[in-house]
Amino acid sequence: MQLAVVGLGRMGANIARRVMKHGGHQTVVYDKSAEAVVALANEGSTGATSLEDLIAKLDAPRTVWVMLPSGPITESAIETLGKLLSKNDVIIDGGNTFWQDDIRRGKALAARGVHYLDVGTSGGVWGLERGYCMMIGGDKEVVARLDPIFKALAPGRGDIPQTPGREKRDPRVEQGYIHTGPVGSGHFVKMIHNGIEYGLMQAYAEGFDILKNANSDALPVEHRFDLDIADIAEVWRRGSVIPSWLLDLTASALAREPRLENYSGFVEDSGEGRWTVNAAIDEAVSAEVLTAALYARFRSRRDHTFAEKILSAMRAGFGGHKEPPKP
Amino acid sequence: MQLAVVGLGRMGANIARRVMKHGGHQTVVYDKSAEAVVALANEGSTGATSLEDLIAKLDAPRTVWVMLPSGPITESAIETLGKLLSKNDVIIDGGNTFWQDDIRRGKALAARGVHYLDVGTSGGVWGLERGYCMMIGGDKEVVARLDPIFKALAPGRGDIPQTPGREKRDPRVEQGYIHTGPVGSGHFVKMIHNGIEYGLMQAYAEGFDILKNANSDALPVEHRFDLDIADIAEVWRRGSVIPSWLLDLTASALAREPRLENYSGFVEDSGEGRWTVNAAIDEAVSAEVLTAALYARFRSRRDHTFAEKILSAMRAGFGGHKEPPKP
Amino acid sequence: MQLAVVGLGRMGANIARRVMKHGGHQTVVYDKSAEAVVALANEGSTGATSLEDLIAKLDAPRTVWVMLPSGPITESAIETLGKLLSKNDVIIDGGNTFWQDDIRRGKALAARGVHYLDVGTSGGVWGLERGYCMMIGGDKEVVARLDPIFKALAPGRGDIPQTPGREKRDPRVEQGYIHTGPVGSGHFVKMIHNGIEYGLMQAYAEGFDILKNANSDALPVEHRFDLDIADIAEVWRRGSVIPSWLLDLTASALAREPRLENYSGFVEDSGEGRWTVNAAIDEAVSAEVLTAALYARFRSRRDHTFAEKILSAMRAGFGGHKEPPKP
Amino acid sequence: MQLAVVGLGRMGANIARRVMKHGGHQTVVYDKSAEAVVALANEGSTGATSLEDLIAKLDAPRTVWVMLPSGPITESAIETLGKLLSKNDVIIDGGNTFWQDDIRRGKALAARGVHYLDVGTSGGVWGLERGYCMMIGGDKEVVARLDPIFKALAPGRGDIPQTPGREKRDPRVEQGYIHTGPVGSGHFVKMIHNGIEYGLMQAYAEGFDILKNANSDALPVEHRFDLDIADIAEVWRRGSVIPSWLLDLTASALAREPRLENYSGFVEDSGEGRWTVNAAIDEAVSAEVLTAALYARFRSRRDHTFAEKILSAMRAGFGGHKEPPKP
Repeated sequence: MQLAVVGLGRMGANIARRVMKHGGHQTVVYDKSAEAVVALANEGSTGATSLEDLIAKLDAPRTVWVMLPSGPITESAIETLGKLLSKNDVIIDGGNTFWQDDIRRGKALAARGVHYLDVGTSGGVWGLERGYCMMIGGDKEVVARLDPIFKALAPGRGDIPQTPGREKRDPRVEQGYIHTGPVGSGHFVKMIHNGIEYGLMQAYAEGFDILKNANSDALPVEHRFDLDIADIAEVWRRGSVIPSWLLDLTASALAREPRLENYSGFVEDSGEGRWTVNAAIDEAVSAEVLTAALYARFRSRRDHTFAEKILSAMRAGFGGHKEPPKP
Repeated sequence: MQLAVVGLGRMGANIARRVMKHGGHQTVVYDKSAEAVVALANEGSTGATSLEDLIAKLDAPRTVWVMLPSGPITESAIETLGKLLSKNDVIIDGGNTFWQDDIRRGKALAARGVHYLDVGTSGGVWGLERGYCMMIGGDKEVVARLDPIFKALAPGRGDIPQTPGREKRDPRVEQGYIHTGPVGSGHFVKMIHNGIEYGLMQAYAEGFDILKNANSDALPVEHRFDLDIADIAEVWRRGSVIPSWLLDLTASALAREPRLENYSGFVEDSGEGRWTVNAAIDEAVSAEVLTAALYARFRSRRDHTFAEKILSAMRAGFGGHKEPPKP
Repeated sequence: MQLAVVGLGRMGANIARRVMKHGGHQTVVYDKSAEAVVALANEGSTGATSLEDLIAKLDAPRTVWVMLPSGPITESAIETLGKLLSKNDVIIDGGNTFWQDDIRRGKALAARGVHYLDVGTSGGVWGLERGYCMMIGGDKEVVARLDPIFKALAPGRGDIPQTPGREKRDPRVEQGYIHTGPVGSGHFVKMIHNGIEYGLMQAYAEGFDILKNANSDALPVEHRFDLDIADIAEVWRRGSVIPSWLLDLTASALAREPRLENYSGFVEDSGEGRWTVNAAIDEAVSAEVLTAALYARFRSRRDHTFAEKILSAMRAGFGGHKEPPKP
Repeated sequence: MQLAVVGLGRMGANIARRVMKHGGHQTVVYDKSAEAVVALANEGSTGATSLEDLIAKLDAPRTVWVMLPSGPITESAIETLGKLLSKNDVIIDGGNTFWQDDIRRGKALAARGVHYLDVGTSGGVWGLERGYCMMIGGDKEVVARLDPIFKALAPGRGDIPQTPGREKRDPRVEQGYIHTGPVGSGHFVKMIHNGIEYGLMQAYAEGFDILKNANSDALPVEHRFDLDIADIAEVWRRGSVIPSWLLDLTASALAREPRLENYSGFVEDSGEGRWTVNAAIDEAVSAEVLTAALYARFRSRRDHTFAEKILSAMRAGFGGHKEPPKP
């Protein structure tokens, strides 16, 4: 099968590689960086010099996987591709697009007979090796047509134990990809995946923070513990209730650098955590943990908040309290 | 009536003053600072040079109001007083003592026939002028005996509108003091008062923070507002749903200093906010807002948390993300 | 001056009344309910039988205050009015419209020379008597032109103490109304007002919940208190740090009905609390308390959440735990 | 080696079994239920009819693993054992004891020359098969002496990938057990493990709740998705960022019962989640997520809270709002 990949960053390049390596498929690739194109061409892809060139190098019906930063860059590429492509061709947005944008785009492209799939793609820098978990929104027939691509990208069953009771269920799911429903649903499910990811990360982070501060001067001497955080992360991987891939990564980081001195503490967030909270609110669902996890990142990026100064101003007002300077 | 006051800080000195001024009562005062004692003596108090001297200068049955920093200092003063006092004398702890300590002390003193009242005392630096709101735990008869003291300290009805339907209820409450129940209950109720205070403060603080950041570069230009925070605080005092004394204080602070540049953002907490959360947990009551308000203060006092570094370490692990340095 | 009022619910009718009574202004009123129109006509308004009739009864330049449920009903009324009105006329949206809708409408109307003001109007059922706190977005000149209307509706200085340091600031603010900036900013500020309102309410609510449960069987007998919640609400109005109008209302409700048996516990939310959280997220501001307050309402309206069942399913999975049936 | 086990519930019985099966050790067992004792005797243990009998059947130095419900039952058993045992004997508390109780007990027993280890033991119903993750507090020499017991109980390296960079670190940790420090530290670390567990569970739970409600009537029709929750849980196990053992268990539960109809939604909590929050507060560490997870369980067990009724009472007060009856 043939797959075009637009955008050869960390994710896009590896998707092209894995599709070739694990599926034996042909790839045609384009990136605004000629170097990136050449690199992939050297690994067996057909390089293209423009979107027009890319389209020209594909046989109909064409499939173009767009793997670009979400937002205006993706928007613009898909708009251009929509004009270049023909009836029955497929555009896949594999990035982290907001699902309502997918719905809008899907409708616009459908009017021209071009199919659109939104594929929430998880796996990060490990995807080339481990495979990608894919959440796919779009028409059933199109998803079925492109099955060889998804199969090549997915991790496959591997040695992950099977879940009992799934015998009559969709076997693709056990390969690591799922058709979630109509256009938009793929990125919706991926968005929730990321929202959960934020919550899980924050749960571990708070736990390790309490362990770290168990030796605090503020505690009575007889209640202090000087704990080996790296060893604790490791031991929890083995037989406890809380093993996870995120814990594996944490244990690795702590084994290398037990105090994490080289991290600033400044934590970015991408759109999915925010959209997850927005979705919860639209549905009137309480999402305390997912929201708190997002807010912790917001707070990490500020030196001090105006909110905190308001608190101090009130305390000075009613109690004459003067806050100590920041330690 | 006669009242001894131990501890002549901001609160204790004003309590002695208000009891004299509003009740015409006699006061005998002691502080480890001779200067503080002399200052009050110059305003009409009888000064004492030690706790022993203080006791000697009182007629039986004696009443000693202890107004010292909560913790070991109060504990030690009450222990000493307990030994010096006699049957039917009364010790009042007007500080911010943990209510379970009151229960313990009350029992110990009762064994010697000495009464103990825990009086949660609110009003801060404004109490001398406005009067103190008092939440009193202890024996009914003792509270009744000392009514002239509480009446003098309380704000009285003033011009605060009466609540309909209270005609048959305890009239002391409308004067600004309440007998909450047995020993411990006064400080318990005061603790919850402070817990609520934290929550209210944080609600305003977050609201003003959102207003302040409504002009953020991160927003689309057409969605930005450059708002006058000081004027907004003022207007909300008048006819809105959210007027409060805390808002009055905020409006005053913002009128003086609209950007609050002179506050560091570092916000202290005293024990009551923490004990409130502990009480909620003991009762299995969800107290999200009161807890979040406490945590916001904790966070304000840290440059960066280990939790945040854990998050970044994970993000580097699965996504190769490198956080930008702190801005 | 002349003011048209469209929508004669609780808020709209009282706005017409207060404008007449406190400003001596003329009002022309319309509501889809003829009875509501007649009622106001009997109090001195000129009644209209349709929007067309309303417009016909006004002298140019016309001012129409729309006070309808936010959403499609308001949207439709303003669309119709926009077509009926002429250059230099003014539409005021006094409802709880989403501020981004204001910006859109303002632009559309400006193209036809019709002015638009978004007036966040607080005061609820008490506004007729106490006056309305108004947050006004729109063109400076238009706001100035309509000053007599706003002045009549606002509470005025009354006996609320003046804030020191405001001598050189906009005097309208002390009357209870503010020009917050361009179109949209009025409802933006009102939205934050409501967001804060949610947070304040929840802070009190949690505090009273802890007081209520202080007598719980789950506590050791010696740590239980049987507290009089109604009296505590009342005493906190007097000299404490946490008096507020919301506390006044709570004390009134508890004086009438100390256990609040007649409330189901089901709590609605309107859009402002949700939009406040969305605004916080857009600005990357942590708003833990305002969000938790919103989520508490969401949760109050569900019998049980799927989230809770997921928790139980996990607990059964790793620990064989069987949850007890709901008590 | 010889190990006595007191308490033959799900955990205790399996610990005896695994120590025999995986370590070839001898066990002497006691439970107040004679049936439980007989059952283990039939599997190779030596049964005892009382604690005295148990002690009599052990060779010095003796080791007694107490595996009883935390609280008074454990307290009483350890008190009795402390009197029966002799210098150099060891009591292990493998239950979920509060770590400050361990410190108190450890001191009391040390005065008599009896050693005390607090062993946080994770693994639940799966421990017999998977092995137990153990967090051990106490004297280094005692922990070393009992190494064969811990080794038998621990999962061992198995096929869990090794963490790079651990070559020079304590090899026991990779077997699944850790000496965390002095008495109390084992249960402290186990407590945090459970606190994190609560947070992780809640993160997944909220995510699935949002997925479940993505088809809600409250949403615009074009934004609704009818998602297959069971398939989504499964697919996330494979190549995503959020695989974990807890997710495995969730996927199993959902494969069996996709709507979880047989769960009431009522979720219990044990002490560790609460103590984790208390520890965070003592250390002044923000633990938003771990606390929110705890509160979600509290809320799940109440039909309606007094807090919610307070909210409704306020809403009625300022806005005349009448809440709809519970749906």
